[in-house]
Amino acid sequence: MNKINDKILINAQILRDFSFTLLKKINMDDKTSAFVTDSLVQSDLRGVDTHGVVRLPTYLKRFTTIEWKNSEVIKDDGVTALIDGNNSPGQACAGKAMELAIEKAERFGVGLVGVKNSNHFGTAAFYTMKAAEEGMVGLSFTNASPRLAPWGGKDPLLGNNPWSFAFPRRNGVPVAFDISNSVVAAGKIRQASMKGEEIPIGWATDKEGNATQNAEEALKGLLLPIGGHKGYGITLVVDILSGILTGSGFARQINGIDKTDSPQNVGHLLGAIKISNFIPYEEFLDRMDTMTCLIKNSEKAPGVEELYLPGEIEEKLCQERLKYGIPIPQKVITKLNEMADELGVDRLVVN
Amino acid sequence: MNKINDKILINAQILRDFSFTLLKKINMDDKTSAFVTDSLVQSDLRGVDTHGVVRLPTYLKRFTTIEWKNSEVIKDDGVTALIDGNNSPGQACAGKAMELAIEKAERFGVGLVGVKNSNHFGTAAFYTMKAAEEGMVGLSFTNASPRLAPWGGKDPLLGNNPWSFAFPRRNGVPVAFDISNSVVAAGKIRQASMKGEEIPIGWATDKEGNATQNAEEALKGLLLPIGGHKGYGITLVVDILSGILTGSGFARQINGIDKTDSPQNVGHLLGAIKISNFIPYEEFLDRMDTMTCLIKNSEKAPGVEELYLPGEIEEKLCQERLKYGIPIPQKVITKLNEMADELGVDRLVVN
Repeated sequence: MNKINDKILINAQILRDFSFTLLKKINMDDKTSAFVTDSLVQSDLRGVDTHGVVRLPTYLKRFTTIEWKNSEVIKDDGVTALIDGNNSPGQACAGKAMELAIEKAERFGVGLVGVKNSNHFGTAAFYTMKAAEEGMVGLSFTNASPRLAPWGGKDPLLGNNPWSFAFPRRNGVPVAFDISNSVVAAGKIRQASMKGEEIPIGWATDKEGNATQNAEEALKGLLLPIGGHKGYGITLVVDILSGILTGSGFARQINGIDKTDSPQNVGHLLGAIKISNFIPYEEFLDRMDTMTCLIKNSEKAPGVEELYLPGEIEEKLCQERLKYGIPIPQKVITKLNEMADELGVDRLVVN
Repeated sequence: MNKINDKILINAQILRDFSFTLLKKINMDDKTSAFVTDSLVQSDLRGVDTHGVVRLPTYLKRFTTIEWKNSEVIKDDGVTALIDGNNSPGQACAGKAMELAIEKAERFGVGLVGVKNSNHFGTAAFYTMKAAEEGMVGLSFTNASPRLAPWGGKDPLLGNNPWSFAFPRRNGVPVAFDISNSVVAAGKIRQASMKGEEIPIGWATDKEGNATQNAEEALKGLLLPIGGHKGYGITLVVDILSGILTGSGFARQINGIDKTDSPQNVGHLLGAIKISNFIPYEEFLDRMDTMTCLIKNSEKAPGVEELYLPGEIEEKLCQERLKYGIPIPQKVITKLNEMADELGVDRLVVN
């Protein structure tokens, strides 16, 4: 058994088969199970471990507890469409929405598809990279449960609403930009809290809206947006695009991912843009090559070894993990195997 | 004469007529002169003084020095179009592009128009607010001359590329989000430098890429992006959308606004989305009302008097300045009147 500290290296395909089997067992169809599985395992491969199979128990719980059915297109006007997620898994809703957006972009130059009544969709780049792989610009927006206040406020009213843009490059690895709008993720504050460490001023406030270095207090308080009022504005824009415009939940109407007895009311907006509607595709790739060279060869600040394009670090990790396996913490494996036992499927093969 | 400190209050219409006359005098046609004038005076009205008539001397110099002609649509594929700016004023290029995007969105649900070979276009919200006034979602992106490094770098490779989204609201005042991607604008560092004050760590680096509190050193160095690698990613995304995708200049190919003997090679991307392609327009407005109420009535942090939506502070100032006049610094008026003398038009009427 290959171990790194308390983590065990698992082959990506084995993890994929295991996830797929679990999801099928709770009566998800093949396509839905595949979307969820691909999203989770891709996150683990790319080092976004918070959005990987660690989420599987929550998903299994939610989709055996709430009422849901597969999503359906409820409005189609050519360039745009609206999907009712019917409270089904976010990955399947957004995955189908991006497939539709790509079809539309192929035909019209642009495709824009909204989704309402969805759930957590994993990483935003999972969808935009699909557009980039088809030689298109991909865009995705989603709202999420409240963690940020309007700038100057102390009420957690807005989600840390992730968004992504991806662009194709000649070597096949897209530029994949994917962020949420707080200075750091809540997970980083949780880590500091567990280690009993202080956090820097500027990461979070206590629940009264005061700046704090105390990680415990910060966890009860607010995440601070990047750039102050700027990040507040961004997260509001993403909520309007994915929640208000689609007819889905927004602001405080979104339920947290761990509240597994309720649909989350999440909304998404997915889009694709056909590059040759603007400039010839090969010329776009040339220009992306030029930008890549400029960035990779530009001067580094003291102590910096390499400059990266968005998504490049994740891609490196992905190649490494495809080769050597994905490090999964022992306690996550234990939890997953408990779920496997409960559902009567084979445990995760660890070797 | 109404004065506030060294500033003189000028009536918006008088300022508008003065600007229009100056621009006409250098052989800009009515429409181009009107776009530039409206953008400058709207900026002054909304308190974005850095993008107001203070820029007029630079514009007058550029467009009497370089070769340019009016922009033209060089590619139209229904939902999308591409405009060659022919080095004409950015406001006219982007203004026409947004008009076209709105027409397309009315017809197809979405309109997306790229612009290449353009110049500084003023504030990004100037265009998105036009879409919002037509009851649509507006989006705009532009690149700009290099001020930021790739995260970890010390080469100013990327512009502080502004972008905007605007959304209609029932009372007629749109939510108008408009940011550039650095923690603070260069102007704020220039102010500190003039006052001999230090700047906070996190605003900028010296030219070696080291953190600095010295405003002088910072002016020779780099602006720091919001959220570190996140803001770097955003500014790169905006450069790809407005520069690379449109076939315009990008990264270091963009000339600064003050280099008046050269075209700037700036690119833009303007878009409009028809709301009723997703949900009924009245329902969208209801939901925007709900969001507005939530934000305005949510709890304030200690010492905060009011919470604002993006664009709300600017709108308040606009109403005030429409009533009492726009405060223009005496030295700007002097400069403008020198230009008026040079071009043989009437000086600005100050009363």
